[in-house]
Amino acid sequence: MSDSPKKTVLSGIRPTGPAHLGNYAGAMRNWLRLQDEYNCFYSIVTWHALSSEYQNSRVIREFTFEMAVDLLSIGLDPERCVLFVQSEVKEHAELHLLLSMITPLPWVERVPTFKDMQKELAEKDINTYGYLGYPVLQAADILIYRAGIVPVGEDQVAHLELAREICRRFNRLFGEVFPEPQHMLTETPWLAGTDGRKMSKSFGNAIYLKDPPEVIKEKIAPMVTDTRRKRRSDPGEPDDCPVFTLHRAFVEKGRRDELAAECRRAGIGCLECKNVVIDSLVRILTPYWEKRALYEKNPGQVWAILEKGNHRARRAAQVTMGAVRDAVGF
Amino acid sequence: MSDSPKKTVLSGIRPTGPAHLGNYAGAMRNWLRLQDEYNCFYSIVTWHALSSEYQNSRVIREFTFEMAVDLLSIGLDPERCVLFVQSEVKEHAELHLLLSMITPLPWVERVPTFKDMQKELAEKDINTYGYLGYPVLQAADILIYRAGIVPVGEDQVAHLELAREICRRFNRLFGEVFPEPQHMLTETPWLAGTDGRKMSKSFGNAIYLKDPPEVIKEKIAPMVTDTRRKRRSDPGEPDDCPVFTLHRAFVEKGRRDELAAECRRAGIGCLECKNVVIDSLVRILTPYWEKRALYEKNPGQVWAILEKGNHRARRAAQVTMGAVRDAVGF
Repeated sequence: MSDSPKKTVLSGIRPTGPAHLGNYAGAMRNWLRLQDEYNCFYSIVTWHALSSEYQNSRVIREFTFEMAVDLLSIGLDPERCVLFVQSEVKEHAELHLLLSMITPLPWVERVPTFKDMQKELAEKDINTYGYLGYPVLQAADILIYRAGIVPVGEDQVAHLELAREICRRFNRLFGEVFPEPQHMLTETPWLAGTDGRKMSKSFGNAIYLKDPPEVIKEKIAPMVTDTRRKRRSDPGEPDDCPVFTLHRAFVEKGRRDELAAECRRAGIGCLECKNVVIDSLVRILTPYWEKRALYEKNPGQVWAILEKGNHRARRAAQVTMGAVRDAVGF
Repeated sequence: MSDSPKKTVLSGIRPTGPAHLGNYAGAMRNWLRLQDEYNCFYSIVTWHALSSEYQNSRVIREFTFEMAVDLLSIGLDPERCVLFVQSEVKEHAELHLLLSMITPLPWVERVPTFKDMQKELAEKDINTYGYLGYPVLQAADILIYRAGIVPVGEDQVAHLELAREICRRFNRLFGEVFPEPQHMLTETPWLAGTDGRKMSKSFGNAIYLKDPPEVIKEKIAPMVTDTRRKRRSDPGEPDDCPVFTLHRAFVEKGRRDELAAECRRAGIGCLECKNVVIDSLVRILTPYWEKRALYEKNPGQVWAILEKGNHRARRAAQVTMGAVRDAVGF
């Protein structure tokens, strides 16, 4: 432990609808862990949502609300972190425009995910100027808070590297304004959805945090397990069982190891094993459901919390933009 | 004359240093003409300047001041128009980011001037993401004031067409927020510089508004005229005389026609003919020099005028962004 001030963390989440267990086990649970140790800016990234949802933009406000409720209900404390809406802080757009002027076109063109995403989202027609520039916007998102640490999954490391290059280029051209952001590799466990494929809203196979206990049970009970277990007496391999990906994320290790051993010697049935993770989820989510019920009754409170976060984010962003303008000479 | 409210005009000028006669005869004099008939927003486009000058950005502030002094000194009246600095109105950046999300990449890639400008400004390394997007920024510059009219030279008509396409796309996706801007074709006379090539700051052949009378005389007196006039007694052709491009812009038509006729019958010497345009320039620029002297003694007044313009522009831009956010559903 040192007396040095807390480092600043920036992380963003797309408002794409209610959060599911995959979102929770990845980014969201990690946000909870970081909120005490760091000076955290958590952004609901509405501009990024617009880049793919511009043909259906009306949902963004509703999804922003949903995401805020989900985050607050899992225990994010708006007193201990800054939870805000990206597009409510104009300085993101301002720094984005400035960084766009110094970002060589080949840097953004070579980002491998651009072409991949275009294929994946072919029906959404994201071959836009703004979508090409989303790594520039990400760089602005980070640098505007002079964040030193950015939690990222493995697939986002290349984008952060681009943000670091843009950071270095700015500092070289205009003077040392920004610390170079470092990545903090975040484990994002692979979770099976109800059909055994990766849990994803777009596959329609997700279990949502807001699903009540009986729905969670209804979704997990019929899931296919390791196909070796045709009969109760057939031993199975948990590493090949889609349901066991949920155990890995939500059942504590000791109990999980017992279950794995029992599975391998056919000492437990699949339904019994599923009940363990269902019970575990109900235990984990009970405080979430309680908080959620309160926030749902009082949407004004949620918007007020966000407005307060927007205000705090704006203040920090304005200080940075002051330094940026001085450096550039505007 | 109708009772309908004045239409809104948007025009921008790059702060690239002191204005020369070419700038004056083109955009600047036109701005003077329009300030009574229209509701004019005149922007010193610092973001656009940054897109090509980011490696030398410290000059932008100085050049912004120079441009403001030039504009005020030629008679632009900050009470009758809104004179402001683009980067001081954050909503330009905000609308630019939003429009970037709906602008198909091929629309900006096909702009013919992008490749041309890259060649022309090869030493400035403008192959950047932001430079590719400058038609998107231009669209934002126009639409943020819901301007119906944009004075442009012939070479800018293609850019305005792109702004119109972006406008239509926004209105189709989100509802009718913006009027479709129409171009007002502005004659930008071709003026010879001291070396006979087009007058341009970068050629070092420019006559500046702030040049005192003796410098104007020194610059024009040695200029090459129509090469047919080797001797005083050789008749000439004004259409082939670089100096006569200045007469076209600054000597009134009656007198100019007389001079042309005299030239064609060798009735006047070139120096005498040059003196006519020099005298004319001195007459036109005398009130400019007087005003300029006052503003130079009081730079704080110039910045205060700009700040007031920024404030008025911001108010208008914020009203538009309110309508934009409602339409998009943010």
